[in-house]
Amino acid sequence: MHLFGSSHGPCVGCIVDGLPMNTVIPKERIADEMKLRKPKDGIGTPRKEKDIVEITGDMNGRAFGVPITMTIRNENTHGSSYSEFSHKPRPGHADLPALMRFRDFDIRGGGPFSGRLTAPLVAAGAVMKDLLGSKGIEINAFTRSVGNIEDPEEGVNEIQLTDTRARTPELDVLMKKEILEASEDGDSVGGVVECIVTGLPIGFGGIWFEGLDSEIASAMFSIPAVKGIEFGKGFELSGMRGSESNDPYTVISGKVTAEKNSMGGIVGGMSNGMPMTFRVAFKPTPSISKEQSTVDLKTMTQTTIKINGRHDPCIVPRAVSVVEAVAAIVVADQAKEAGLFDQ
Amino acid sequence: MHLFGSSHGPCVGCIVDGLPMNTVIPKERIADEMKLRKPKDGIGTPRKEKDIVEITGDMNGRAFGVPITMTIRNENTHGSSYSEFSHKPRPGHADLPALMRFRDFDIRGGGPFSGRLTAPLVAAGAVMKDLLGSKGIEINAFTRSVGNIEDPEEGVNEIQLTDTRARTPELDVLMKKEILEASEDGDSVGGVVECIVTGLPIGFGGIWFEGLDSEIASAMFSIPAVKGIEFGKGFELSGMRGSESNDPYTVISGKVTAEKNSMGGIVGGMSNGMPMTFRVAFKPTPSISKEQSTVDLKTMTQTTIKINGRHDPCIVPRAVSVVEAVAAIVVADQAKEAGLFDQ
Amino acid sequence: MHLFGSSHGPCVGCIVDGLPMNTVIPKERIADEMKLRKPKDGIGTPRKEKDIVEITGDMNGRAFGVPITMTIRNENTHGSSYSEFSHKPRPGHADLPALMRFRDFDIRGGGPFSGRLTAPLVAAGAVMKDLLGSKGIEINAFTRSVGNIEDPEEGVNEIQLTDTRARTPELDVLMKKEILEASEDGDSVGGVVECIVTGLPIGFGGIWFEGLDSEIASAMFSIPAVKGIEFGKGFELSGMRGSESNDPYTVISGKVTAEKNSMGGIVGGMSNGMPMTFRVAFKPTPSISKEQSTVDLKTMTQTTIKINGRHDPCIVPRAVSVVEAVAAIVVADQAKEAGLFDQ
Amino acid sequence: MHLFGSSHGPCVGCIVDGLPMNTVIPKERIADEMKLRKPKDGIGTPRKEKDIVEITGDMNGRAFGVPITMTIRNENTHGSSYSEFSHKPRPGHADLPALMRFRDFDIRGGGPFSGRLTAPLVAAGAVMKDLLGSKGIEINAFTRSVGNIEDPEEGVNEIQLTDTRARTPELDVLMKKEILEASEDGDSVGGVVECIVTGLPIGFGGIWFEGLDSEIASAMFSIPAVKGIEFGKGFELSGMRGSESNDPYTVISGKVTAEKNSMGGIVGGMSNGMPMTFRVAFKPTPSISKEQSTVDLKTMTQTTIKINGRHDPCIVPRAVSVVEAVAAIVVADQAKEAGLFDQ
Repeated sequence: MHLFGSSHGPCVGCIVDGLPMNTVIPKERIADEMKLRKPKDGIGTPRKEKDIVEITGDMNGRAFGVPITMTIRNENTHGSSYSEFSHKPRPGHADLPALMRFRDFDIRGGGPFSGRLTAPLVAAGAVMKDLLGSKGIEINAFTRSVGNIEDPEEGVNEIQLTDTRARTPELDVLMKKEILEASEDGDSVGGVVECIVTGLPIGFGGIWFEGLDSEIASAMFSIPAVKGIEFGKGFELSGMRGSESNDPYTVISGKVTAEKNSMGGIVGGMSNGMPMTFRVAFKPTPSISKEQSTVDLKTMTQTTIKINGRHDPCIVPRAVSVVEAVAAIVVADQAKEAGLFDQ
Repeated sequence: MHLFGSSHGPCVGCIVDGLPMNTVIPKERIADEMKLRKPKDGIGTPRKEKDIVEITGDMNGRAFGVPITMTIRNENTHGSSYSEFSHKPRPGHADLPALMRFRDFDIRGGGPFSGRLTAPLVAAGAVMKDLLGSKGIEINAFTRSVGNIEDPEEGVNEIQLTDTRARTPELDVLMKKEILEASEDGDSVGGVVECIVTGLPIGFGGIWFEGLDSEIASAMFSIPAVKGIEFGKGFELSGMRGSESNDPYTVISGKVTAEKNSMGGIVGGMSNGMPMTFRVAFKPTPSISKEQSTVDLKTMTQTTIKINGRHDPCIVPRAVSVVEAVAAIVVADQAKEAGLFDQ
Repeated sequence: MHLFGSSHGPCVGCIVDGLPMNTVIPKERIADEMKLRKPKDGIGTPRKEKDIVEITGDMNGRAFGVPITMTIRNENTHGSSYSEFSHKPRPGHADLPALMRFRDFDIRGGGPFSGRLTAPLVAAGAVMKDLLGSKGIEINAFTRSVGNIEDPEEGVNEIQLTDTRARTPELDVLMKKEILEASEDGDSVGGVVECIVTGLPIGFGGIWFEGLDSEIASAMFSIPAVKGIEFGKGFELSGMRGSESNDPYTVISGKVTAEKNSMGGIVGGMSNGMPMTFRVAFKPTPSISKEQSTVDLKTMTQTTIKINGRHDPCIVPRAVSVVEAVAAIVVADQAKEAGLFDQ
Repeated sequence: MHLFGSSHGPCVGCIVDGLPMNTVIPKERIADEMKLRKPKDGIGTPRKEKDIVEITGDMNGRAFGVPITMTIRNENTHGSSYSEFSHKPRPGHADLPALMRFRDFDIRGGGPFSGRLTAPLVAAGAVMKDLLGSKGIEINAFTRSVGNIEDPEEGVNEIQLTDTRARTPELDVLMKKEILEASEDGDSVGGVVECIVTGLPIGFGGIWFEGLDSEIASAMFSIPAVKGIEFGKGFELSGMRGSESNDPYTVISGKVTAEKNSMGGIVGGMSNGMPMTFRVAFKPTPSISKEQSTVDLKTMTQTTIKINGRHDPCIVPRAVSVVEAVAAIVVADQAKEAGLFDQ
């Protein structure tokens, strides 16, 4: 999977290679997933993009051994509001390192560091989710928390589709309120996305640097604003004793399973047959309209900025699709390596 | 960096390729780092290994374009105590997936999933730390917590060398006690390692799937028992607002810097010039001598096991060196890519 | 460098990543090189393509750390004449293996195996030639032979630009005649392209599987119709003695050089400072209008076909640009690895 | 496959990863292949090595998911005779580029550029040949020519095992004579190895940069002294017309096959079901005892050298095993990618 493009260039896109022969390129599902990633009224950015995915490289809707290229035009770009930031880096953004590293860096929309690059990830992820689904592997994510509102339920059974991607309409109302309050204050808010992957066979994954958790973690940090990841009980495990953290095995309907899932379904980089669960921490959107201190790189003096561009007060509702997509890309990759699609 | 070997085979080791021409292979430093990884009396496993690193591929102590191979013999292996686990997988270990995946898997010491494989990581890391030090990049880790004992200090200044790798002798006493109590109960305990990397130039890192945080995260999960990672304030950021999480920039002595470091020195996969800080969560050692439920894979019935082999009641004190080494391997790799060693 | 597209799909193209920061994307040079690859009247295919290269990923005409995508539309596609070959594979083409391997393989124009894919190679090569030129590395190829007409000159000094890419107008006349005669017979003809790379520093290259000759050879075979490659005196060396094949060293103007260049400038996978020279053998275009035997895969009986599509009676004149481009891609890659662009 | 070591260091070796689970590590076959690579009395170097292959990473003689490390000690090293060449580079050797590139390069035996590194290639190749044999894929090479003695037979049926690896005892006598004459003159001689791979399914291979011919070619140039490669009729094709070079298809016993094999079994980077045949040109051994001109790098003046070390007057007889091994490594790699071992 190779990304290309940037936020305010003509397009963003990706090349997907290595798809098993005859993999269906599910155009409707791609469109549906792109829709889920779109900003929701009130809680999302007013920048609206059609997000039509142009696909080349398939033959009659199937992959046949050459890369699939998916291109999404950027249509709704307003670059004018960014000129100030080309010498006054926005705190929390990639501006400062980008400006120091790249001569004449195009700061508009964060350039290649923009969340806009998650659009092709979602498109590629839709292909992979479809492919994995045909092998009984399902990937579902939801908003575990937004700011101080946290979904308290432990064993998650049902996930309803809401604007904030909270699991229930009740939580959706609370999370929406949290986002709107931040927005009204000219501020933003962070949150946590939780992802559950079911259907992985016991032993699925890799070893050492190719462990399933290694590759999932790596890929998640490629999503802008991610600052942490934990599998199963994660950081909580560090305060436990082994007798509490170990998941004892048992037999149910003739199959080995674990009695609980503190490990998040992963041991030694491989699936132990339990659902793989992990949580991804997103920082608040760095773009806020409150005044912030920064430095004018031309004069090397302290100054202040206000960011008035279009942005999401909370990225989490849109990130849920992205987390699913990125997980699908990694799992499909390892499934291919394991020969799962040759069977 | 390619690992080889397993816990109870003849040796473990690694091949390090791509070292800049004339990189010093610092034999004393390698030996010193290997010593830091050794179990400490009372709080570590009684399995003692000499951990002498045999090095080939250098010329008069320097790299000259061919891979460096580092081999460490396994001398103190007692395999007899493991036979039971070849059909009764130990909870929390890689046994179940390994047994399902690999026919005739050699369960002894966890085979390739053993912490023994961290020995060559430490050896390779010593080379990289030395190399990075010559460019002003320093990597230091310490034990942030063990079980319920947590180092409360925020801005870490000084790190003293103690048995538990706690930052101070006072914390060392408390953490030792926590470990010994678990050990006396036939149990184990987890903890958190914190790592600080200083001297990275602004803009250091990569983009998308090659971000510095992506590659650090990926590599950390290759260390056995790691279940989570967070940069800067990490998961805490998800509950914050942007006005609180953003790190405003300022000028000190003519240089751009940030007023605080919630981001852990990383934005957009690149260094913003602040120290890169991250925390790694370790689960408790899965080997405990308390009775645990598991399944007998021959009869597919529930049974119990007790693990009486040699093991560390807490892996964290030894993992501190490993976290440093793995961070050094990743940073050196990206430094090479950035041409830092050509200057 | 990742290719995408196929002969009769909407486009062909490539993604170029890893360009040094601020590499100029030389739009005019790209257009010029595309022109050189175009078929020449009389000796080339009547399929005419505008070959306009759309570029995304640059900033104000320079690379800035994200991949450059170059896309070339397919405009002049006549697919109708190919239907017969979907069950009667054309000898010498990739049809038979492609039809056996890929279900519903789109045979039109050879699909992804078409020479059409060399268009994005030439576009990428133009960027690389420009970049290498700025470091004093020049790449020049010419037609060494077409059918029975061979350029007899050993030490090549001047290369003039002719339709057949023969070095001189005199040779051009002879080679054109050779091509036209084959064409008039409803036949095709092969040839040899020779390539000379100057300006490589002594020691440039890699070792083992990454030798400069290894990577050049690998890349050349990715050009359709290539069947052989030799460096320096190549196959002739196999009949020599060492006292004849070794190139003795001498000193000219204070610099080490070799007295002759049997080795083609490469020893041990690295440059010895002499011009790197190699020859690439192209088979005759497999598309000929003469009747040929083949098999009807539906009935599994022998049959005959005649190929009446548009094709080049000799691919060599157009392949000269492609050989240069592919050499430039490989050399630029190794130059980057060697830190040549960091200086 | 990662190589390590050098000619006059403690050992050479390789790490083989990615072997299918439970691949047999055929210790006897490895030993047998190592024997074939050994110098033969009279026509080979007097340096004798035991070439015992130490293997780690298997479990009870089978691969189980971790890399296999194969190490071969260097026992018979005489380094003293090389000191002169550390400032007087030997023509035809890698000395000049190596000395310019690597500070303090250890010239002894050519260091990492030595033919000694082909020992671990042969060991790895033995594993792969065994593995491929289990899928009906056989790889056989022989000496096509030595100096002016060429095996004239076109369609090769039987290959007998002789000292020079000529196909018949009669040819062996002639080739031996050619080698001995060169040797008596203090000179060396080159030759050509031909390799035939049978049993590849139609469509086996890759596309673009991953074509089977691309990867074979790349790997062959990693063998020291290789200067050319051609598939099927190779360079001869460049003088042909398409009506002569195309291989018409026919049906034999219900199977599609070609009437002849000018293409060497490869079209579009994939197998067309015919035996894959290619020829590899080896230059004469650069080490000769005749006086040669070179440069003294200390004084930058012309001088002469005589090479009195131990060396093979013709590398070809020993290279036959190496060509087979390297072909096996490439084919096994692509077979794995194609899922051939999952069936």
